[in-house]
Amino acid sequence: MKAEYINPFLEAGQMVLSMVCGVEPKFGKVYIRNSPFSADDLIIIIGITGKIKGQVHFLLSKENAKAIASFMMGGMEVKDLDEIAISAIGEIGNMIMGNTSTIYAQKGLKIDITPPTIVLGEKIEISNKAPAIAVPVNLDRFGSMDIVIAAVEQE
Amino acid sequence: MKAEYINPFLEAGQMVLSMVCGVEPKFGKVYIRNSPFSADDLIIIIGITGKIKGQVHFLLSKENAKAIASFMMGGMEVKDLDEIAISAIGEIGNMIMGNTSTIYAQKGLKIDITPPTIVLGEKIEISNKAPAIAVPVNLDRFGSMDIVIAAVEQE
Repeated sequence: MKAEYINPFLEAGQMVLSMVCGVEPKFGKVYIRNSPFSADDLIIIIGITGKIKGQVHFLLSKENAKAIASFMMGGMEVKDLDEIAISAIGEIGNMIMGNTSTIYAQKGLKIDITPPTIVLGEKIEISNKAPAIAVPVNLDRFGSMDIVIAAVEQE
Repeated sequence: MKAEYINPFLEAGQMVLSMVCGVEPKFGKVYIRNSPFSADDLIIIIGITGKIKGQVHFLLSKENAKAIASFMMGGMEVKDLDEIAISAIGEIGNMIMGNTSTIYAQKGLKIDITPPTIVLGEKIEISNKAPAIAVPVNLDRFGSMDIVIAAVEQE
């Protein structure tokens, strides 16, 4: 996938993650993830249709997700990833993808996104039909997150 | 979600599953699955945008998936869910959703779908932002599958 299709995710990620987590996210080098690949124990999955078609995965650990949810809820302790905490974490994916759509639109490219699905589990392996590009993100005291874009350009 | 939005999934599922698995699939009673819900250890996830927006999950066990993949590949033994077997299983979701789109189109309703993501793991729990409707499907000697439609109607 062309860099111009990847950059909006990075731009939106930078904006949303710095706002939501109160840290300066540092993006690592983009790389290809071949299917199947192992994932952390929490994944936010959001579908995309339109100019590009596929699924975007936000991979993080439950521990980091709890710390981020706690910060989002004004420092309230999050012992378990309950419905409210899961909803807050899903909202991060939703906001990043919403902003990505807006940046695409500003470039005259239309994409549409699905609401988030959040998967928790152990020993998770993910396979995608579309090729997957991963972007590691360092979130300082909130550890790391991988943004995986498994999508193909449409004619 | 209205029954007219659910029925195309059942119709497409009936057609594809009977063709692919060579059995007469029996659909159980539709019910609501509240988030988070436990899932089998293999999930095919396909996003939908357009007249309805959300994600569809096909939940099955790895054992049943292996048996189905083996049948799809002419009876070849499938010991592990390797790339080819996973791809065959993902294709079932893809075919069901492709046929669902066609039935929607025949009703004058437009939906667009993403390629499939396949998640394998243990102790999986799924949460959706959209309300989830589950349809249990009995696949005779291939056990059971749940089709979960987590989607909302768009204006």
